[in-house]
Amino acid sequence: MTTGVKDMLDTYPADLGGVDRDKLIRCVEQCIACAQVCTACSDACLSEETVGELTKCIRTNADCADVCTATAAVLSRHTGYDAHVTRAILQACATVCKSCGDECERHADMHDHCRVCAEACRRCEKACNELIASLG
Amino acid sequence: MTTGVKDMLDTYPADLGGVDRDKLIRCVEQCIACAQVCTACSDACLSEETVGELTKCIRTNADCADVCTATAAVLSRHTGYDAHVTRAILQACATVCKSCGDECERHADMHDHCRVCAEACRRCEKACNELIASLG
Amino acid sequence: MTTGVKDMLDTYPADLGGVDRDKLIRCVEQCIACAQVCTACSDACLSEETVGELTKCIRTNADCADVCTATAAVLSRHTGYDAHVTRAILQACATVCKSCGDECERHADMHDHCRVCAEACRRCEKACNELIASLG
Amino acid sequence: MTTGVKDMLDTYPADLGGVDRDKLIRCVEQCIACAQVCTACSDACLSEETVGELTKCIRTNADCADVCTATAAVLSRHTGYDAHVTRAILQACATVCKSCGDECERHADMHDHCRVCAEACRRCEKACNELIASLG
Repeated sequence: MTTGVKDMLDTYPADLGGVDRDKLIRCVEQCIACAQVCTACSDACLSEETVGELTKCIRTNADCADVCTATAAVLSRHTGYDAHVTRAILQACATVCKSCGDECERHADMHDHCRVCAEACRRCEKACNELIASLG
Repeated sequence: MTTGVKDMLDTYPADLGGVDRDKLIRCVEQCIACAQVCTACSDACLSEETVGELTKCIRTNADCADVCTATAAVLSRHTGYDAHVTRAILQACATVCKSCGDECERHADMHDHCRVCAEACRRCEKACNELIASLG
Repeated sequence: MTTGVKDMLDTYPADLGGVDRDKLIRCVEQCIACAQVCTACSDACLSEETVGELTKCIRTNADCADVCTATAAVLSRHTGYDAHVTRAILQACATVCKSCGDECERHADMHDHCRVCAEACRRCEKACNELIASLG
Repeated sequence: MTTGVKDMLDTYPADLGGVDRDKLIRCVEQCIACAQVCTACSDACLSEETVGELTKCIRTNADCADVCTATAAVLSRHTGYDAHVTRAILQACATVCKSCGDECERHADMHDHCRVCAEACRRCEKACNELIASLG
């Protein structure tokens, strides 16, 4: 599918400042994908017979989904841009993606959903960190 | 980009019941795309010189983003499935996508972001209605 | 604590139409309280030794939190009011609160968090239904 | 109203670690209140005749609402606690509350909703910072 992130950025009517457009687009796309994957992984863990061993994973997935959703929203706004806010939410997002990626990786051999989810978290963490670095 | 919606559905460890998988995948993808596009359109409207004429659009965009985000999350869970909940949130989502699509369409000739957003809303509304119909 | 819902409604600069202010305030307050309680109940269930018997409860709690959060946001906006959207999200919210309240009630004798959560869901469902009825 | 934050914390079935319960309760309550007030302020700004001068305020309100909502959710979970995640989202929340409080304060003399909102942001920022300090 096409997400429309790039299309919308192309139609923004005002100046975007010195933002790195490709890194921004990639980061928003990874955030919305990671949020959905984490919600799905949380639920898939819940349906495993070994759910009792996956409680930390379920919890971290839920946190990651919530923070990625908020980050995607903040990054989708450009009016009245505040670098402090952007940087802070990106750092929180990279932190929770690292935590969730680490936890899912521990179960990746056993559960395909955790493997797919760990990969999504790694991509999102990387995209957040690359966008942070580009903010200067 | 690949959203991962299909990959996660393929790894769900329990029975999905009689759900139409293709319609479900499409609906989740449209919901997460529409949520992002509506947040971006809301912000783009805010940066137009004619913002005073776009206040209803900004508000409806915000509602649409919130409801699409909640709908994507509900549809990403399969454990303990409750058809009443799924149907009710899909109907709310179709309703707000219709409202937001109509409002954006009124400004589509003037503003490209409203045109792109109207299209995203139409696709999401359609995907919701097709999934509702498939629920039987 | 004071939530500020009434204070903000009192400062809205435009006409609110024929809305029943008390029912609106109550409904927003119940939605934000119910969202938090459901998130906490979902997590408390996750820490029970009998988590394997609470998976439907955890899932329904998560849905309820997501829909209540979206509903509170929609109800907190008054600009460009659209009764179709308000009614649809209220109906979804009442539906998921009923479902979550029923599920939590089944565990209320065993788990205090489910008892408290069932009560929050009942209050929120009632507030949604009373607001729907007042919309005419 | 009673929010239920304390009631739910009291029923959590596992160990909460060394968390300062009063600071945690206060912070969750401030986050959910601030999220609602910011959504309402964003919408109230939208209905002002001078909306063109309030676009940064509307945007920052929306960011603040999104981040406060995510923070409240993360803080409502205790299973598999990760101090890095908690600290990072609290820092993001304090940052956006500072930014939103500053922006709303600039319009507080003109608009009561901005005055009420600035106060809610200050309280939430303070509660986040006090909880961060208590994490050690």
